[in-house]
Amino acid sequence: MVSGRFYLSCLLLGSLGSMCILFTIYWMQYWRGGFAWNGSIYMFNWHPVLMVAGMVVFYGGASLVYRLPQSWVGPKLPWKLLHAALHLMAFVLTVVGLVAVFTFHNHGRTANLYSLHSWLGITTVFLFACQWFLGFAVFLLPWASMWLRSLLKPIHVFFGAAILSLSIASVISGINEKLFFSLKNTTRPYHSLPSEAVFANSTGMLVVAFGLLVLYILLASSWKRPEPGILTDRQLLLQLRPGSRPFPVTYVSVTGRQPYKSW
Amino acid sequence: MVSGRFYLSCLLLGSLGSMCILFTIYWMQYWRGGFAWNGSIYMFNWHPVLMVAGMVVFYGGASLVYRLPQSWVGPKLPWKLLHAALHLMAFVLTVVGLVAVFTFHNHGRTANLYSLHSWLGITTVFLFACQWFLGFAVFLLPWASMWLRSLLKPIHVFFGAAILSLSIASVISGINEKLFFSLKNTTRPYHSLPSEAVFANSTGMLVVAFGLLVLYILLASSWKRPEPGILTDRQLLLQLRPGSRPFPVTYVSVTGRQPYKSW
Repeated sequence: MVSGRFYLSCLLLGSLGSMCILFTIYWMQYWRGGFAWNGSIYMFNWHPVLMVAGMVVFYGGASLVYRLPQSWVGPKLPWKLLHAALHLMAFVLTVVGLVAVFTFHNHGRTANLYSLHSWLGITTVFLFACQWFLGFAVFLLPWASMWLRSLLKPIHVFFGAAILSLSIASVISGINEKLFFSLKNTTRPYHSLPSEAVFANSTGMLVVAFGLLVLYILLASSWKRPEPGILTDRQLLLQLRPGSRPFPVTYVSVTGRQPYKSW
Repeated sequence: MVSGRFYLSCLLLGSLGSMCILFTIYWMQYWRGGFAWNGSIYMFNWHPVLMVAGMVVFYGGASLVYRLPQSWVGPKLPWKLLHAALHLMAFVLTVVGLVAVFTFHNHGRTANLYSLHSWLGITTVFLFACQWFLGFAVFLLPWASMWLRSLLKPIHVFFGAAILSLSIASVISGINEKLFFSLKNTTRPYHSLPSEAVFANSTGMLVVAFGLLVLYILLASSWKRPEPGILTDRQLLLQLRPGSRPFPVTYVSVTGRQPYKSW
């Protein structure tokens, strides 16, 4: 039942994520003239596509690696490598997306980093970089103690979700800003809701729906990888009924896996 | 130690929340001509102040009622009433904030609800209204069964955090949009970063910092109210050491409170 809901959510997630990227590409291609890599406005058009793909869709997918039931059994290292590699891909897409907008601005002698969208966006990317390097150093390299990992894990998980929330805020403010720029001197301005505005607004709302679904799967405790020696909420609920009073319980692994080295 | 960090976070939270509201009032008063209730642009100026106060600061504070250690002991009903009452205050501020912008738009024959900011904002307020009424009906009125409450509680908690995240995205896109509107035909436009832009951008970043702190306190499990008969993570960590293998544990209430009726 829980597993069925999980895979249904994955299917919905994959569809929503693909739609977020494809809708952004279509918006840029159909209404904004397409793509180029020459410092023109067509180079800017890579920016929304790559930020939605990198900071939202790939980032969201990469965050959910440990929610796959297959990752719950056996050694953790391959899943950590996959988690780090997918996030690195997301980060590379993000950096190329930043190069696109900075190059476009510099080419047209436009100021960089003045709007609140850009302040929040660059802060989010900076937090993402810190999160990746700290995660790599503490959770992937073998030198960190279990104590340090236990201390930093809830912070790593919290900032993982927080960075996704900030990415959504950056994307929403970015789409809003772009539409005010693009539709200000046209026969059908933004406030008359031309088809481009309806389409781009809907793309923004899709990004919100995708982000919320990722956060739901990330924070829903029954889909979390059980930690060795720690009872999860679901495991607890199997043993403790609501309203029950102090009684002895015994920890029994519900996955039936063998003890393993954690890093 | 944990309790000390909690109260330090509360102090920081109170300071940040007050600064968010005061900075928004100062922005509207000093650079945008102050406040009125007559359909003019000075009526619009209530909108950012009331949305930041209602949807972010009061909402955030109201969400954290169950994180106060005082709420962990004794009957839950008074804390539920406080939680619902504070959220109702937040909702009233929000509705007055919406009245301000709709009246301003209608007075000047400006279109309503066309920008992505407004689409996301109105969706967030709608979700807030659903969340409040569902919470009132299921968790405050006595008719709902424990089964229904247990089923809906994680959804209520998730949407509580999700609505705050969407409020932050709405506020960021709103401040960004307002600055592009206000600073477009001035001697010092937005891209030259006049003092108003630096101040309003900083206000937006303060809202983000406040929101992240609320979400951290909300999601940090060691500050959650222990449920009767359910071991919390912190309680578990007191008994189970990292790396330990199956052994019998006994549930002992760490708060030492008496059993109480839950509704």
